[in-house]
Amino acid sequence: MSTQVAQPLRLRRVAIDTYRENVAFLHRDCPAYRTEGFQALAKVRVSSANGEGRRIVALLNIVDDASIVGTGEIGLGEQAFDQLAAVEGAECSVDHAEPPRSLDAVHRKIAGERLDYPDFRAIANDIVSNRYSKVEMAAFLVSCGQTGLEREEVLHLTRAMVETGERLDWGEALVADKHCIGGIPGNRTSMLVVPIVAAHGMLIPKTSSRAITSPAGTADTMSVLARVDLPMDEIQAIVRRERGCLAWGGTARLAPVDDFLISVERPLSIDSPGQMVASILSKKIAAGATHLLVDIPMGPSAKVRDMGAALRLRKLFEFVGDRLGLHIEVVMTDGSEPIGRGIGPVLEARDVMQVLQNDAVAPQDLRQKALRLAGRVLEFDPDVRGGQGFALARDILDSGRALSKMRDIIVAQGEVDGPPRQPGRLRQEVRSEREGVVTAIDNHQLARIARLAGAPMDLGAGVDLHKKLGDQVDAGELLYTVYADFPSDARFAEERVKQSVGYTIEAASAQVGARAGGSALTQELS
Amino acid sequence: MSTQVAQPLRLRRVAIDTYRENVAFLHRDCPAYRTEGFQALAKVRVSSANGEGRRIVALLNIVDDASIVGTGEIGLGEQAFDQLAAVEGAECSVDHAEPPRSLDAVHRKIAGERLDYPDFRAIANDIVSNRYSKVEMAAFLVSCGQTGLEREEVLHLTRAMVETGERLDWGEALVADKHCIGGIPGNRTSMLVVPIVAAHGMLIPKTSSRAITSPAGTADTMSVLARVDLPMDEIQAIVRRERGCLAWGGTARLAPVDDFLISVERPLSIDSPGQMVASILSKKIAAGATHLLVDIPMGPSAKVRDMGAALRLRKLFEFVGDRLGLHIEVVMTDGSEPIGRGIGPVLEARDVMQVLQNDAVAPQDLRQKALRLAGRVLEFDPDVRGGQGFALARDILDSGRALSKMRDIIVAQGEVDGPPRQPGRLRQEVRSEREGVVTAIDNHQLARIARLAGAPMDLGAGVDLHKKLGDQVDAGELLYTVYADFPSDARFAEERVKQSVGYTIEAASAQVGARAGGSALTQELS
Repeated sequence: MSTQVAQPLRLRRVAIDTYRENVAFLHRDCPAYRTEGFQALAKVRVSSANGEGRRIVALLNIVDDASIVGTGEIGLGEQAFDQLAAVEGAECSVDHAEPPRSLDAVHRKIAGERLDYPDFRAIANDIVSNRYSKVEMAAFLVSCGQTGLEREEVLHLTRAMVETGERLDWGEALVADKHCIGGIPGNRTSMLVVPIVAAHGMLIPKTSSRAITSPAGTADTMSVLARVDLPMDEIQAIVRRERGCLAWGGTARLAPVDDFLISVERPLSIDSPGQMVASILSKKIAAGATHLLVDIPMGPSAKVRDMGAALRLRKLFEFVGDRLGLHIEVVMTDGSEPIGRGIGPVLEARDVMQVLQNDAVAPQDLRQKALRLAGRVLEFDPDVRGGQGFALARDILDSGRALSKMRDIIVAQGEVDGPPRQPGRLRQEVRSEREGVVTAIDNHQLARIARLAGAPMDLGAGVDLHKKLGDQVDAGELLYTVYADFPSDARFAEERVKQSVGYTIEAASAQVGARAGGSALTQELS
Repeated sequence: MSTQVAQPLRLRRVAIDTYRENVAFLHRDCPAYRTEGFQALAKVRVSSANGEGRRIVALLNIVDDASIVGTGEIGLGEQAFDQLAAVEGAECSVDHAEPPRSLDAVHRKIAGERLDYPDFRAIANDIVSNRYSKVEMAAFLVSCGQTGLEREEVLHLTRAMVETGERLDWGEALVADKHCIGGIPGNRTSMLVVPIVAAHGMLIPKTSSRAITSPAGTADTMSVLARVDLPMDEIQAIVRRERGCLAWGGTARLAPVDDFLISVERPLSIDSPGQMVASILSKKIAAGATHLLVDIPMGPSAKVRDMGAALRLRKLFEFVGDRLGLHIEVVMTDGSEPIGRGIGPVLEARDVMQVLQNDAVAPQDLRQKALRLAGRVLEFDPDVRGGQGFALARDILDSGRALSKMRDIIVAQGEVDGPPRQPGRLRQEVRSEREGVVTAIDNHQLARIARLAGAPMDLGAGVDLHKKLGDQVDAGELLYTVYADFPSDARFAEERVKQSVGYTIEAASAQVGARAGGSALTQELS
């Protein structure tokens, strides 16, 4: 069989940001395009001829404008260019990329089969090597989300995600962490648990993600007060000195598969139990945690809505944690309404600082929940008696030692310059149409309103609650204020409020039973 | 709440072909990008201020090069620009696109719920209105493919696909069509059935798709002989004159949802029964067919591997067809090996013409199968007695009337100029390593080899079989020849052949039972 070598193409950087998706550009009249019979949106393999001969896989766009790429050039978007690690003008060749081999496993998963460790490892490898398109990642995610993953599969996936990235070793026997599965707006307990636990001297190197589908993550909220986007060596130095940190985990290559999957999970709002457990535990194990407290909020509009589902999730966390050497404690908490008052980075940071400062107006539900969680983490310490954690945490908070530790962490990470950030300049007041008692608050609806208002991208955007469950309300009385920075966002939020304010107000006589039930649930859980 | 109007942006066409995906480009320093807090790959809504104020949804790419788009401009890729139907320089605004509302239904499907007609209609509407990203379409497809669609859901989806496009009306009581579910290389019976049936005078306006995952579709193969890319009014004129055609259906807006879904199904190689039935029947109903013959090939490497699956599929076709007023007959055929000798457009067109010309070397299996199918279609005619269709079809073929009709159709569609197309110039001969009898041919492996060799994009690429099931083979004797036009394709095909040639050769004594089984199956099916 005869072989011919195609003309090499000159590499050109095309200054287009395509976010975690590699894109290559060929001119329609480029000989390589014509002879190789590529199609637009085909996956191609670009190889640099020099040096180590690196290769990347990219999605092909066809260009009809020689000022973007010429006929003798191959253009690469910014992400793809950086990955190929070649210089402009370098000789490159391009050919058809075969589908990633592990896509066979995805097809088997779609067909309802159970996958084993080598399957998940191959998928994880292909993903971190940029061989999966977004469409292929979506197929993988949906296939896992639908029939669900068996618990052995979750274990395999978690291990594969850990082993395709870097791993930190703190050199200590007890490295604590905490994590909430999310879904409850305003639930910023990490920013209280970390200073309390670190003030006790326990190592708690907390790295957080930014919000995926919620109006604020811990990293977003902490960014109101301090720099969170820190290189890994700096995070390590801060943790060794302060015993804790509240940084963004995205700069490290810890379980990087997760970062790829998130870029598809976010637009799809996919969040299945198996993927949730694999995502959380792979990050924690890669970050070197030895002991983890998991918070599962439960309530009618929480991610977990009944005790059966909560128990299944707890057992899944325990199953995977036990087999990968991570000590896990799971607590189920009251998820029937938002925690604290603020929803959105600036408003939630305000709540957190009020609690740390022992301010009389500080939201008591946030304080109580944080103390309970911090108490459980403190009991990981063999020297703390079972049941004494809560009192110890309260002493640390009430004495001001937690506030002092928070200030140290803020300074160590780099305090935000200038006057404190304020809530958004556009405000909408949402009032009750009737008199009665608040008998339900829809977490999902309030989160959605805060997101539409611009949170977390606009730090000052969000919702500030004036009424909580069980509160008396007069007709026309303020329920909450929506803050936004930009008119289009304010408009979206306003439209959403018109659909539903997210509050249920019932006449005082009608709601006695419901309220009593709510109290019973809260007691059972605490 | 105050409102502000953002500065309008000037529209600019960015000469990048992004194939059925709308892409918008903003400069990183564009005020709209900063103030609206967009992210790369966010979905945005672009509205033209003038005229009818059209709106499109597009995926956002961020640009760092003012020569592509400036800070006061909004760039649109070619597809998006055409859809907005505005002129360069027109004033446009851009804001956040909300996720398509029907995505809620996709989430319910992922959660295992059954969807109803309004759900499918809303999804189809959103897809044809370009509101779905490819990732969202992948989520829809995988969610339907996995738990499968119930038959009512297939009915709803089919109807939704028909009703979101145009619909032809031929003004005749009997409009015939035929369709094979695919999976068998070389199976070009349509190019024989159409001239036979049209020569009889029955209306058979056959429009075909190009190959999705196979090495050749009818449209690809017909394009070797005639123009297939015809505007709808021209197709209609040809059909009225010739009673039949063999054109590509892609120019019409018949069940256009399918064309969007295919752009995601293709890279994912997804092909579930429910989607297959909805895709086939929606196109046929929109094209005005009243009677349809469906060919389901069955065999160990066919799409349908056992009689149980074939019967379930037949009943699904019948269920949907009956409720949408389409008379359906299903035949199950022998899918144990490729039909004819050639695999790939040029090679398959050669086989077809040999049969039409009653050439002594014409592949007999292709001839027999085509006569059987044409006979069943002819029996749609009330004047043809049950059981007489086969003999009638054979008369039309043997007398040369079918060849004459094919020539008329070729001329009417526009004959391809120049000398006849030849098989690819790069050839690899694949020989048997041992003596024996061919007891199995893997359809999937041979299709894959032909595709890697360049089919159907390169018309001359493919595989030409010299041995079929039951043939005696000597050691070193030729099994098949692989044709390619380009070195990289030839290399890919060669690597695949090295993995497996796709033929099973067994010693003559060992294969008696297997061969007898194969014959029995063939008889049972014919």
